[in-house]
Amino acid sequence: MTRSGRRPGNSGTREAILDAARVRFAEVGFDKASIRSIATAASVDPALVHHYFGTKHELFAAALKLPVDPRDILSHFATVPVEDLGETIIRTVVTLWDSEIGVPTIAAFRTLLASDDPALARTFLLDIVLAAIRPRVDSPPGTGAKRAALAASQLAGLLVTRKILRIDPIASMPVEELAATVGPTLQRYFTGELPLTD
Amino acid sequence: MTRSGRRPGNSGTREAILDAARVRFAEVGFDKASIRSIATAASVDPALVHHYFGTKHELFAAALKLPVDPRDILSHFATVPVEDLGETIIRTVVTLWDSEIGVPTIAAFRTLLASDDPALARTFLLDIVLAAIRPRVDSPPGTGAKRAALAASQLAGLLVTRKILRIDPIASMPVEELAATVGPTLQRYFTGELPLTD
Repeated sequence: MTRSGRRPGNSGTREAILDAARVRFAEVGFDKASIRSIATAASVDPALVHHYFGTKHELFAAALKLPVDPRDILSHFATVPVEDLGETIIRTVVTLWDSEIGVPTIAAFRTLLASDDPALARTFLLDIVLAAIRPRVDSPPGTGAKRAALAASQLAGLLVTRKILRIDPIASMPVEELAATVGPTLQRYFTGELPLTD
Repeated sequence: MTRSGRRPGNSGTREAILDAARVRFAEVGFDKASIRSIATAASVDPALVHHYFGTKHELFAAALKLPVDPRDILSHFATVPVEDLGETIIRTVVTLWDSEIGVPTIAAFRTLLASDDPALARTFLLDIVLAAIRPRVDSPPGTGAKRAALAASQLAGLLVTRKILRIDPIASMPVEELAATVGPTLQRYFTGELPLTD
């Protein structure tokens, strides 16, 4: 299909689908938001949603204005030994933030932080990012959600200080030094003994 | 002086002073921004700046829309033994965030994060918050800036996940559990052996 074959109304339709997707993902989370319900809210056929955006994961990335499907990054962590997760995650995400696609990624994060309703950002973190990590660090059973959320707190703050506020020496610290310095924090959250009260 | 004695133009003057203060603090940092230069930029007498806002620290808090002078909080840490700083800081700042004045504090932080220019937020963190911590953790000499900035990265992320994105179980974790869980992260950054490459 050539671009010239598209009708003038297409960009409006795409935006209507993305708006409906943002509302739906924020309201019910990623898993429960069906393409069908998003299509209905946007008054289009579900096939058109797939045609424009591909899979539900790709639609979600587009709704958040992420330059990549976050699962492409998260899939890197699936085969990493759990005792290496801390350093590997720091190395991978900092390299991503510092790359060309880091700019739109960080812009998307700032938009989510500034928004009045944190539900869409919460869906992204809980249903996509932490969902990929949680089962890997769920030892003893039931602690995975807490361990993953604690790691997210350090990662979010690293992004804020290095890429948004640009606080030195964190802003200019080499990736390998960050991995060696902040990696052990994530590792302790993942596999260390935590004072778990519930 | 009674409120009825103020001229109608006063709120405009106050705003002009605050605008000039934000620009000046962002441009040259807290220490180099003089009340005189801020008064000149706002086309008012320096005495009027003091009359409206008190000290330079109080003016800075007003410019950032902070509900308290941050030094009132930071002064709590001056006498805490360095080996207790991690847990004490977590306990103090989380209690503050969860209190009534936490709401405007977090709103101020979000505004700074969303702003196009991070210089004002950087001034606040570097010249006020980290300046109070840095000399206490400067061992071996020269590592204080790095140690304080690393601690700031964990604190900023805790604020983002607990109070802005409200990610559970961090959002609902009791203060004491957070102090016991995240306090050791700060403590390692403050006094632990770090892979310091420069």
